[in-house]
Amino acid sequence: MHTFALFGCGRIGQIHGANVAANQKCHLKYVVDVYQPAAEAAASKFNASVATIEEALADAEVDAVLICSATETHADLIVQSAHAGKAIFCEKPVDLNIDRVRQCLAVVKECDVPLMMGFNRRFDPNFAHLKNALDQGAVGDLEMLTIASRDPSAPPVSYIQSSGGLFRDMTIHDFDIARWLLGEEPVTVYASASSLVSPEIKEAGDVDTAVVTLTCASGKVAVITNSRRASYGYDQRVEVHGSKGMLEIKNVPESTVVVSTDAGVQAQKPMHFFLERYAAAYKSELECFVEGLASGNHTFPSGNDGEKALLLADAAVASLQSGQAVAL
Amino acid sequence: MHTFALFGCGRIGQIHGANVAANQKCHLKYVVDVYQPAAEAAASKFNASVATIEEALADAEVDAVLICSATETHADLIVQSAHAGKAIFCEKPVDLNIDRVRQCLAVVKECDVPLMMGFNRRFDPNFAHLKNALDQGAVGDLEMLTIASRDPSAPPVSYIQSSGGLFRDMTIHDFDIARWLLGEEPVTVYASASSLVSPEIKEAGDVDTAVVTLTCASGKVAVITNSRRASYGYDQRVEVHGSKGMLEIKNVPESTVVVSTDAGVQAQKPMHFFLERYAAAYKSELECFVEGLASGNHTFPSGNDGEKALLLADAAVASLQSGQAVAL
Amino acid sequence: MHTFALFGCGRIGQIHGANVAANQKCHLKYVVDVYQPAAEAAASKFNASVATIEEALADAEVDAVLICSATETHADLIVQSAHAGKAIFCEKPVDLNIDRVRQCLAVVKECDVPLMMGFNRRFDPNFAHLKNALDQGAVGDLEMLTIASRDPSAPPVSYIQSSGGLFRDMTIHDFDIARWLLGEEPVTVYASASSLVSPEIKEAGDVDTAVVTLTCASGKVAVITNSRRASYGYDQRVEVHGSKGMLEIKNVPESTVVVSTDAGVQAQKPMHFFLERYAAAYKSELECFVEGLASGNHTFPSGNDGEKALLLADAAVASLQSGQAVAL
Amino acid sequence: MHTFALFGCGRIGQIHGANVAANQKCHLKYVVDVYQPAAEAAASKFNASVATIEEALADAEVDAVLICSATETHADLIVQSAHAGKAIFCEKPVDLNIDRVRQCLAVVKECDVPLMMGFNRRFDPNFAHLKNALDQGAVGDLEMLTIASRDPSAPPVSYIQSSGGLFRDMTIHDFDIARWLLGEEPVTVYASASSLVSPEIKEAGDVDTAVVTLTCASGKVAVITNSRRASYGYDQRVEVHGSKGMLEIKNVPESTVVVSTDAGVQAQKPMHFFLERYAAAYKSELECFVEGLASGNHTFPSGNDGEKALLLADAAVASLQSGQAVAL
Repeated sequence: MHTFALFGCGRIGQIHGANVAANQKCHLKYVVDVYQPAAEAAASKFNASVATIEEALADAEVDAVLICSATETHADLIVQSAHAGKAIFCEKPVDLNIDRVRQCLAVVKECDVPLMMGFNRRFDPNFAHLKNALDQGAVGDLEMLTIASRDPSAPPVSYIQSSGGLFRDMTIHDFDIARWLLGEEPVTVYASASSLVSPEIKEAGDVDTAVVTLTCASGKVAVITNSRRASYGYDQRVEVHGSKGMLEIKNVPESTVVVSTDAGVQAQKPMHFFLERYAAAYKSELECFVEGLASGNHTFPSGNDGEKALLLADAAVASLQSGQAVAL
Repeated sequence: MHTFALFGCGRIGQIHGANVAANQKCHLKYVVDVYQPAAEAAASKFNASVATIEEALADAEVDAVLICSATETHADLIVQSAHAGKAIFCEKPVDLNIDRVRQCLAVVKECDVPLMMGFNRRFDPNFAHLKNALDQGAVGDLEMLTIASRDPSAPPVSYIQSSGGLFRDMTIHDFDIARWLLGEEPVTVYASASSLVSPEIKEAGDVDTAVVTLTCASGKVAVITNSRRASYGYDQRVEVHGSKGMLEIKNVPESTVVVSTDAGVQAQKPMHFFLERYAAAYKSELECFVEGLASGNHTFPSGNDGEKALLLADAAVASLQSGQAVAL
Repeated sequence: MHTFALFGCGRIGQIHGANVAANQKCHLKYVVDVYQPAAEAAASKFNASVATIEEALADAEVDAVLICSATETHADLIVQSAHAGKAIFCEKPVDLNIDRVRQCLAVVKECDVPLMMGFNRRFDPNFAHLKNALDQGAVGDLEMLTIASRDPSAPPVSYIQSSGGLFRDMTIHDFDIARWLLGEEPVTVYASASSLVSPEIKEAGDVDTAVVTLTCASGKVAVITNSRRASYGYDQRVEVHGSKGMLEIKNVPESTVVVSTDAGVQAQKPMHFFLERYAAAYKSELECFVEGLASGNHTFPSGNDGEKALLLADAAVASLQSGQAVAL
Repeated sequence: MHTFALFGCGRIGQIHGANVAANQKCHLKYVVDVYQPAAEAAASKFNASVATIEEALADAEVDAVLICSATETHADLIVQSAHAGKAIFCEKPVDLNIDRVRQCLAVVKECDVPLMMGFNRRFDPNFAHLKNALDQGAVGDLEMLTIASRDPSAPPVSYIQSSGGLFRDMTIHDFDIARWLLGEEPVTVYASASSLVSPEIKEAGDVDTAVVTLTCASGKVAVITNSRRASYGYDQRVEVHGSKGMLEIKNVPESTVVVSTDAGVQAQKPMHFFLERYAAAYKSELECFVEGLASGNHTFPSGNDGEKALLLADAAVASLQSGQAVAL
């Protein structure tokens, strides 16, 4: 039985809180949020107590924390939690500044606490199935990887202003998946991107439509296509082209109902957004964290994975600014 | 908050028990099973107490029961629970004998307690979506209905010997779906069936491969195809042909991974069996029961639905014996 | 090189005429039609001469005839052609009267000329692929067969009045496919049918919506579902359920374009009707006839196949009238 | 009626020759090939005469030529045919040298003869359907375009040595489709490519696995993924992401048969290679040429389209060599 404190009771915090509360190997003891009513609602819902960061970390019974608060608080919370000797699950990113990330990971290493980064897609049953098939040689050696990742609609500009922009808040998940599947670090990054979806995003200095090419030393290549808007829903597809064939993850439709009329043969849209599409992934992610804590075998995405994905995002930003491929 | 007693802690009892235990509007107070270790394991898992039938029904705090025990105990438990004034959720069937079913439903009516029959498929998101689209006129008036329902593999003969046979234990779900979608009672039933899957089933006097045609007075027709064995998994498809088009429910694959090699383009098999395929349906079914108790608006499958489905099963048996269509 | 005379220059006659004209192993010498302008147009199009039946049959250079004229002329033309020693390709049916069919086939036998019945579906690449996979054991032994066959819209009532009705003009193709795939003759036929599509069809005494169940002595069972109207296009699907799996033929869409919008994920409708859907089948059918003539190895559908399919249609009519299963 | 001379009787020459021979608006008078037996076989097959280039061009009855000979002969044949006043259909490319292409097109312009380049994919029913849907606004404004184009297996190295390499012999078709769909010229080209498929290709100095990104001034972006090997067959897919949704072309399977067994749900591979996959496109392409000649309305791909596609291929080569994006 692991005892948790949850930092941050927003949308994603509530997902993790509910999963901890429902998991028979876990106990959610504290919830923490700068906005008191949110903390109280979560406490009531998950049968937990409201606490401050300090109170939660001071309780020796707490052996793990879930960091689901605002991005700019992640690094500090990681450092504090590490010093308190807690196992840490943290939503991406560690921080938007790579130096700060490195300092933070150094503390984690020094304190020798487990740190799992919340790259949820690896835990989706479809992604996991593809990875397993690839590892078992179903299509031979990977030669080319294509990731399509498109949100149903653009976030508010206020979000973009603090998110680090498209490459750091959205593509970062694709960078993680690319690294995970390639089995090799990219050595060059080239980004082509523009603002076609939203004038506000353009004014905020960000892009909303992007293609990023990652090339490895071995010649393997990955392409990521992103858009902040897919009118048909959350588009999350992967295609691995290997020496013996192709592996694909298709979208998950809202239902399997197909309607054939004189207008055509209509299947359902993909599940609308990440909360629905990755509901199982969030559960499985928590399981992996808990199993890792129990066994000491940490197979989950690490702080290093968070760092490497951020480096790719930074390189994509640099490529976009220079118009040229960036070597890593 | 509704307080439940669970009768029967086998496979299906555990599904319902877990759903009650996880539902915030419910409290699972007692578990009952003739096999004490099963009761104790369930009690421990769901944080409930082991009790006898009498103890559970005598507790005024218990307002609802879940009947998940062996088929031959259903009718007695319904009668006892109705006399105790409890709301009743009962797995199908009420009983395998139509007279006993009617006596039992008369008691339920007399005691004026809610009774929901566990026709789980109506609550599957895909079936519910199809029904909703049909009701909204997506394909005009239903003219023909096709139901394919095939199990991955045959049950042990011991099960068949007490189940009432293919039509009463398996097709009964399809009869319910047919009635639900047709919106009209069939007036004739014709069955063609044989034992192609298993010699043991044949020896036990049952069939394992069947086609049943239901015809309504209006001319609408439904066809059900059944097999006790589908090597590719649990096959659960529906096709509604209407005046303006066709509605289909496709199978739900184990994942969306597709593997293309020189052997072909391979998608995943359907989810293996009912526990996986209808996991969401069982949750939704319980929700409907609980909402019905709260609102007094009982939209769930009733005892009458259980009776009507059994009448169709009995007619299919009679048709098979006589080789002729049976009028209802 | 085979020299042909074509009897009947209507829609289907023009299909076969064009295929003969384009086939390098064939020469279309004569076209015959009771309506002179149709004959002349075809002659011009296919670089052939207009002739009477007698002239065409009297020409010793002609070694094969294509009978594509009105149904009621088929039997006479077969008899005349057989007496003239010509190889005969005849569109279904031989005749609507089973006795006349038998007399006619006796003449063919006596004259010892090849007779191929135009059951075109066997030659569709998709049907041929399924048959081949079945024969090679891809799904083990066939246990259940499902055929969905629906026209995009009802024919004019005038057609129905001389066609012999749904079972004899439309289901007859499905009866042929059922026999071909079952590899065994059905021993009972049960039909449920009604007039839901068109009041005119009802007034003409025919049905437009039907389900026919064919049962074999071995226990194999086939179900055919028909409708005279499928708003989404020509619906032509087959499903073979075997001991080791399932083989399906899906519809052929008008194109592979898929449109995903906020309304859903829309694929194209099936090809509209038989001329488009079976264009390749008609070519392949002619190839088979020509190869059979050359090799003497007649693998094509025979007069006996025409007779057997008509017997099933007659049994379906009898079942519909009596409301009971009919033994063959 | 148009009278044609065919230059080159190899694989693609035979396709066009057969289509001309079967087209009622065309007459194939001459076939020309440096290898006499090939010319004679084609002459016999298409009922044409063997001739020299000079004889064919000197015949005033010939009003159109089909250039299907080796790549290095295209430019000379175009110039000679233009001077002879013939309408010209030429397989891609005009030439592998851009200066030679421009000189050649200047002659064509001077002589004022029609020139159609054989970019066959535009005429495939699926591509044509997608283009039409895009033009009609089915998904709003195009924002991102993805083209997957993979051959079933690598050509012999001897071919690659004279083909101009991957970008000029294979990707050139994708460049044409990209320009056609984007409706705007790309302004930068970035290529990442490597030799993962074949050591011989690597030794010959070419690549076999490539990703090319094309960016337009408006911000629209296109990505092309290529491989010389797709074990599952000829992979030809397009995805247009627009402001209102997504348009896709899926592969065309060899048949619609699906086999479900305990191994999975297996559909058929894509049609094996371009001869099968684009059979209808070649016919339609010829129709377009002939209609253009008849109407004077030349909607077909022009010499300018050939030049622009080659410029993109040259830019991709330059990008690969420099490792940087190339501005056009």
